[in-house]
Amino acid sequence: MEFDLKKSLEILDKTPTVLEAMLQGLSDEWIFNNEGDETWSPYDVIGHLIHGEKTDWIPRLEIILAQQGGSKFDPFDRFAQFKNSEGKTLHQLLEEFKILRKHNLEIVRNKKLTNLQYTLKGMHPSLEEVTLAQLLATWVVHDLNHIAQVARVMAKQYKHEVGPWFEYLGILK
Amino acid sequence: MEFDLKKSLEILDKTPTVLEAMLQGLSDEWIFNNEGDETWSPYDVIGHLIHGEKTDWIPRLEIILAQQGGSKFDPFDRFAQFKNSEGKTLHQLLEEFKILRKHNLEIVRNKKLTNLQYTLKGMHPSLEEVTLAQLLATWVVHDLNHIAQVARVMAKQYKHEVGPWFEYLGILK
Repeated sequence: MEFDLKKSLEILDKTPTVLEAMLQGLSDEWIFNNEGDETWSPYDVIGHLIHGEKTDWIPRLEIILAQQGGSKFDPFDRFAQFKNSEGKTLHQLLEEFKILRKHNLEIVRNKKLTNLQYTLKGMHPSLEEVTLAQLLATWVVHDLNHIAQVARVMAKQYKHEVGPWFEYLGILK
Repeated sequence: MEFDLKKSLEILDKTPTVLEAMLQGLSDEWIFNNEGDETWSPYDVIGHLIHGEKTDWIPRLEIILAQQGGSKFDPFDRFAQFKNSEGKTLHQLLEEFKILRKHNLEIVRNKKLTNLQYTLKGMHPSLEEVTLAQLLATWVVHDLNHIAQVARVMAKQYKHEVGPWFEYLGILK
């Protein structure tokens, strides 16, 4: 499947609703438990997605489109959510993510990007040259990655409860 | 986290809405593409979940509760969906799954299961002895496994589109 903006937006539009459907109203153990040391809970994941909306996807898109000063991206802070989410409920984070995402997708739609622009390049701090199409495709896959992660983290809370079925459940391994 | 019926039902209740939020209205490539030979598309997964509602979870629960004739489970057909879903739209499958799941969770709730009943055993065709609590915990993890699978199958459609970011995206490997 080749990169296509319309099809990418189909997924990006849905993610806040998907995560709300997965998490809203669950008991705390499903939301705040993680997979062990240095891993993230579903609550942490939503904070990470919020930080991405603020500092990653759109700022990098703007850097690529501007084509100035080597189009270098700022490094992304993968741990910012631990401070930024402090004192917020899951519900607040889900609402914040929904608003930020909606606003960001409006920015993307208003750009009316051309095929030529999709090939423009930016300089990633460690991956080096990447194109605008790759950035947008990565945004989609990054969403799906974290949806799968949230499902996996929750599944693992029942790792010991499934008994002999453990061996049939790839998600627990 | 120990098995708890109320917390299990929280997840089981949500799954039809989660899958609808993930899939409803997407372009065909997201829904019908799979991960390669002998793998399942999101469309196939919904058919599999429907077959589970009809032939797996509740029939096995009833077999365990009855405690008769060795409480042997029938084998589950992991490929039934390829025939049963024929001619149906994704929307029809999502609706069918939603109705079956709602009905099945009513059955579970109406049983008013006791702690003693959770320890009753059934005989799985290959795993042998399993308890009712393990069956119910597996139902939860099985849902989450397939939610993660749907996200992964969709993510893989953009495997080549993310360029150098491939190495950061665990879901693509």
